[in-house]
Amino acid sequence: MTAPARRVRLDLAYDGTDFCGWQMQPGRRTVQGVVEEALAALHAGRRVALRAASRTDSGVHARGQVADCEVRLRHGDSALAYTLRRLLPPDVRPLAVRTIADDFHSRNHALGKVYRYRIDRTPHGDPFARRFALHHPAPLDQGRMRAALQLLPGRHDWSGFTSRLAAGDDPVRLLTVAELDDSVAGEIGLVFAAEGFLRYMVRNLVGTLIEIGKGTIPLERVRRILEHGDPRLAGPTAAAKGLHLLRVDYAQPRP
Amino acid sequence: MTAPARRVRLDLAYDGTDFCGWQMQPGRRTVQGVVEEALAALHAGRRVALRAASRTDSGVHARGQVADCEVRLRHGDSALAYTLRRLLPPDVRPLAVRTIADDFHSRNHALGKVYRYRIDRTPHGDPFARRFALHHPAPLDQGRMRAALQLLPGRHDWSGFTSRLAAGDDPVRLLTVAELDDSVAGEIGLVFAAEGFLRYMVRNLVGTLIEIGKGTIPLERVRRILEHGDPRLAGPTAAAKGLHLLRVDYAQPRP
Repeated sequence: MTAPARRVRLDLAYDGTDFCGWQMQPGRRTVQGVVEEALAALHAGRRVALRAASRTDSGVHARGQVADCEVRLRHGDSALAYTLRRLLPPDVRPLAVRTIADDFHSRNHALGKVYRYRIDRTPHGDPFARRFALHHPAPLDQGRMRAALQLLPGRHDWSGFTSRLAAGDDPVRLLTVAELDDSVAGEIGLVFAAEGFLRYMVRNLVGTLIEIGKGTIPLERVRRILEHGDPRLAGPTAAAKGLHLLRVDYAQPRP
Repeated sequence: MTAPARRVRLDLAYDGTDFCGWQMQPGRRTVQGVVEEALAALHAGRRVALRAASRTDSGVHARGQVADCEVRLRHGDSALAYTLRRLLPPDVRPLAVRTIADDFHSRNHALGKVYRYRIDRTPHGDPFARRFALHHPAPLDQGRMRAALQLLPGRHDWSGFTSRLAAGDDPVRLLTVAELDDSVAGEIGLVFAAEGFLRYMVRNLVGTLIEIGKGTIPLERVRRILEHGDPRLAGPTAAAKGLHLLRVDYAQPRP
């Protein structure tokens, strides 16, 4: 295994239910931990540090997470994808492996991310969606939710929709898409695209939108939260299990 | 709880993964067992015998199972549905409860059933389908599978596609639909409708069709299995987790 070092981009999908989120934590099952373990097994036990575009929280799912790491393996990209598929458990799946430029940085180079939040609207609770959607059978005024969503796109200070701001973290982000999708029967999807998201931002947006749909928070509150940056004005953080990281966008992949 | 007796029809959806099938077995978690337990709790511990249209096998899912039982409760139908939703675990869900004629028999009165078998065709294995679809990434000739499916509709002796015939069970059934649906990206659905199915019949049909798709069993074999009724000519029984009972059809519901 003394092959030359190269940097690879790893696209991953995972069912977040049984993971304590992306980030490695001692004694906990995390996506980073499980994938690094598989990579270490291919490198005679040596740690291969994995970096992800988004450090998804406990219970959050991904259909297109992007990570990068340095490998020293004779495997070509597709052989490595194949080998990782065999090594990794069924709830985290490598979609693709590709060799990328040495300076590629999955987090810093991301131009945007797309999230979808799934709300199960069936009265009974779809047993096939119970790990992947929030069950909310009570009435929601979709017209009011759509009106609130229209207030969101733009470059705003999102402090009012995050629970903790890391020191030095810029709370201003450009949000480009905020939409309600009711094309799936018995389900509402809330789709958000932005150049970046603050911690809990999508789930706090969803929690606020649900309260607006229920009528417990007035529509205009959205503008006030954006103006005042006060999280106490927002709704609760919606459950992690409804949140899906759909994809991360980059400029043209570089060779 | 000394309300008059009435018969109710119970429509159920369940994720079969963590059930040992429909039928009650001592010491095992079965759908019948779990639902009867909830019904007994509403009847001061008295057993309420539940009868289902289809005794689905271990690991098989249902989106529209139909069962019937006698209840002695003051609850109206929708209050009973609501109460059962609170009592039952998230992997078995009551879709509807309706009072039906005393002679209604969910199994004997069924005019037909529709099953779907899901095959995950992604190279990596969709983590969101891992409980609900068979992962089969290797090449399958869909043209050959469709040609084989066209040989199935009709009134046939299906002995060659069942593993055990119950004594006195008539192996002749009218199959009306046998179709391949590739409308979902990354997935093949095999849909079968018949007035009734023998045990393992859908899974043995699917196992045979997969072999035909792989080219390990010739297309004409289907005709031979139907003629000779010899299960040794058929492919293996496909995994339970891909099988979904979609619905059970009846004549107009009687008051």
